Amino acid sequence: MRRSVFATRLAALRKRLEHLPVDFVWVIQPENRRYLSGFKAEDMQLTESSGSLLIGRQGAYLLTDSRYATEAQKEAHDFEVITLEKGLGESLPQVLVRLGARSVGFEEEYVTCALFRELSKRLRKLSPPIKLTRLKGVVEGMRQVKDREEIKAMEKSSNLMTEILQEIISSLEPGRTEKEIAWQIEGLAKEGGAESLAFPSIVASGPNSALPHALPTNRKIKVKEPITLDVGLKLDGYCCDMTRTIFLDGPGRKFKKIYRTVRRAQLAALEKIHPGANSNEPDAAAREVINEAGFGEFFGHALGHGVGLAPHEGPRLGPHNPVKLVQGMVVTDEPGIYIPGKGGVRLEEMLVIEKHGARILTKDTHFYDF
Amino acid sequence: MRRSVFATRLAALRKRLEHLPVDFVWVIQPENRRYLSGFKAEDMQLTESSGSLLIGRQGAYLLTDSRYATEAQKEAHDFEVITLEKGLGESLPQVLVRLGARSVGFEEEYVTCALFRELSKRLRKLSPPIKLTRLKGVVEGMRQVKDREEIKAMEKSSNLMTEILQEIISSLEPGRTEKEIAWQIEGLAKEGGAESLAFPSIVASGPNSALPHALPTNRKIKVKEPITLDVGLKLDGYCCDMTRTIFLDGPGRKFKKIYRTVRRAQLAALEKIHPGANSNEPDAAAREVINEAGFGEFFGHALGHGVGLAPHEGPRLGPHNPVKLVQGMVVTDEPGIYIPGKGGVRLEEMLVIEKHGARILTKDTHFYDF
Repeated sequence: MRRSVFATRLAALRKRLEHLPVDFVWVIQPENRRYLSGFKAEDMQLTESSGSLLIGRQGAYLLTDSRYATEAQKEAHDFEVITLEKGLGESLPQVLVRLGARSVGFEEEYVTCALFRELSKRLRKLSPPIKLTRLKGVVEGMRQVKDREEIKAMEKSSNLMTEILQEIISSLEPGRTEKEIAWQIEGLAKEGGAESLAFPSIVASGPNSALPHALPTNRKIKVKEPITLDVGLKLDGYCCDMTRTIFLDGPGRKFKKIYRTVRRAQLAALEKIHPGANSNEPDAAAREVINEAGFGEFFGHALGHGVGLAPHEGPRLGPHNPVKLVQGMVVTDEPGIYIPGKGGVRLEEMLVIEKHGARILTKDTHFYDF
Repeated sequence: MRRSVFATRLAALRKRLEHLPVDFVWVIQPENRRYLSGFKAEDMQLTESSGSLLIGRQGAYLLTDSRYATEAQKEAHDFEVITLEKGLGESLPQVLVRLGARSVGFEEEYVTCALFRELSKRLRKLSPPIKLTRLKGVVEGMRQVKDREEIKAMEKSSNLMTEILQEIISSLEPGRTEKEIAWQIEGLAKEGGAESLAFPSIVASGPNSALPHALPTNRKIKVKEPITLDVGLKLDGYCCDMTRTIFLDGPGRKFKKIYRTVRRAQLAALEKIHPGANSNEPDAAAREVINEAGFGEFFGHALGHGVGLAPHEGPRLGPHNPVKLVQGMVVTDEPGIYIPGKGGVRLEEMLVIEKHGARILTKDTHFYDF
């Protein structure tokens, strides 16, 4: 029988476990959980976990409650499902005792102070006590480099997103509202089989396009102004993220220059995205183009970010904390220029890093050649 | 000038501040943030905050980054917006120093171990050091009791949800899939002006209805089987939550008995919901009806929960940790019986506690009288 992709990932995690001072890793972050187990449930609220994983050198357990137990059993074949009667603070110590754990690594970026306090109080009292050890980015580190199945999934989500964006762009007409367009995107995503959007669509027209994270409004789109569409969907768990700025009837002179600058910045960055490069180099290349054109102060965010099960994940392509880029990473290249009160342009591609450089996954070609 | 609802809430929080050993409260939980300030942005990911509040005995500040600064200024009139250049771990201590803070209360249920560690390290090093104090449920406690504006908002969201559910029920036909129906609900919610769904709709038919939290599948609905619709939407920030179980052509004998039991349990609970009651009494009343009918083991969850800016909030109507019910609380009454592999029935009303008892907000009357 062919080993499941989850068994392969578990083996990779166990290899990392050899170097960690813990005999179990407790995984509660939703995307990490799905990556390792296939368990698809999302957490409805910050404080309501639908499940967590306990992975030891031998066993692998999925802890959930009666609401999710059936799904867990169907989805996470490599895990033994344990149904908890009470909250994690009370139940986790009991399970750990039963499994003979002595030290457990936990995700310090996802466990709240309250839960940590409750757990550590109970675990300290046991005899022998069980030790809690902070872990940071262990599974996230694995997730940064995509395996073949993941890249296939991201090609599929990108192809669907591209098709939809093309349909949207060809249907843009003066007088339609940002909200209507955003809703049309969501409808097409669902019809196309997407699990959900990867994030709320940004449809920002005119002055709204100067807000990098604008929510769609009832504003009607007009000719000659920038219309920024930043869209993403999730298909079989994997996200796509892409942005185009469109001008019905073309822009005026000022936005022509801005657009040209953003596009040149994007292409300059693209050349710097290859295995062995540092993650700050593409950002610097884009920033240089934008600075030279005199728009430096209007490009406030980092160039890009990793994409995968989460719409934003590692590596970050920004000026700080550089990491080495390696084959299999999937990242965005999305410079932008935002003039407060006037409008902005952002162009975003999502691409996978291959042996000889970047391969763009977002294949839409709605770029102007000003 | 009429004092804004936010000014009133800030005053109420400051009153609580008098009894707390802190001179500032730092609020990062998204619904608490919106409740106190009117700032609507949501957090895209667990680890990506779109803003947080710092409320002192005098001043009130909204800390955000450049992506959200413009919205923050538009929405949170009672707050001074501070735009952070770096992450909270680095920026918050600087802001606190500038404001002359000596001790800050933080929401231990929403701050992660990693952020707490970074903050406390930096704050300890200051001279004089700034103290971090754990707070739990301070704003959540205020939110449990709705003011007049909130009840009006919840009436509006309930009316819209009721209209939509009625349209959905009248359009149910054998052969339609759960996913299609769920998508229709979402479309009607958006058309009706909802911000979003309050949670992913549950449309669970036949054996799927035995899973309290089933995700909609491609299963086609059939006559004679339970079809559970658990739906909610968010309008102007406020959630509605309601559930009906429908049988096309009526149920068989077994499900008739189950339905009748659930409905009787719901009505028995309803009588126990009034100011002065303990929050475990309605649950006990429902459970007694279900136990007596012999289905006790198939009612695994608590009877209900509070609803407001969040789809799930306090008070919880369950067997444990009773609290006093008071006027102005909005809660659900949702017993269910789930027979694994066969199907289930859940009926859910959302209601506001008034002086003399419960007033139901979810006015749909699709109940069978078996």
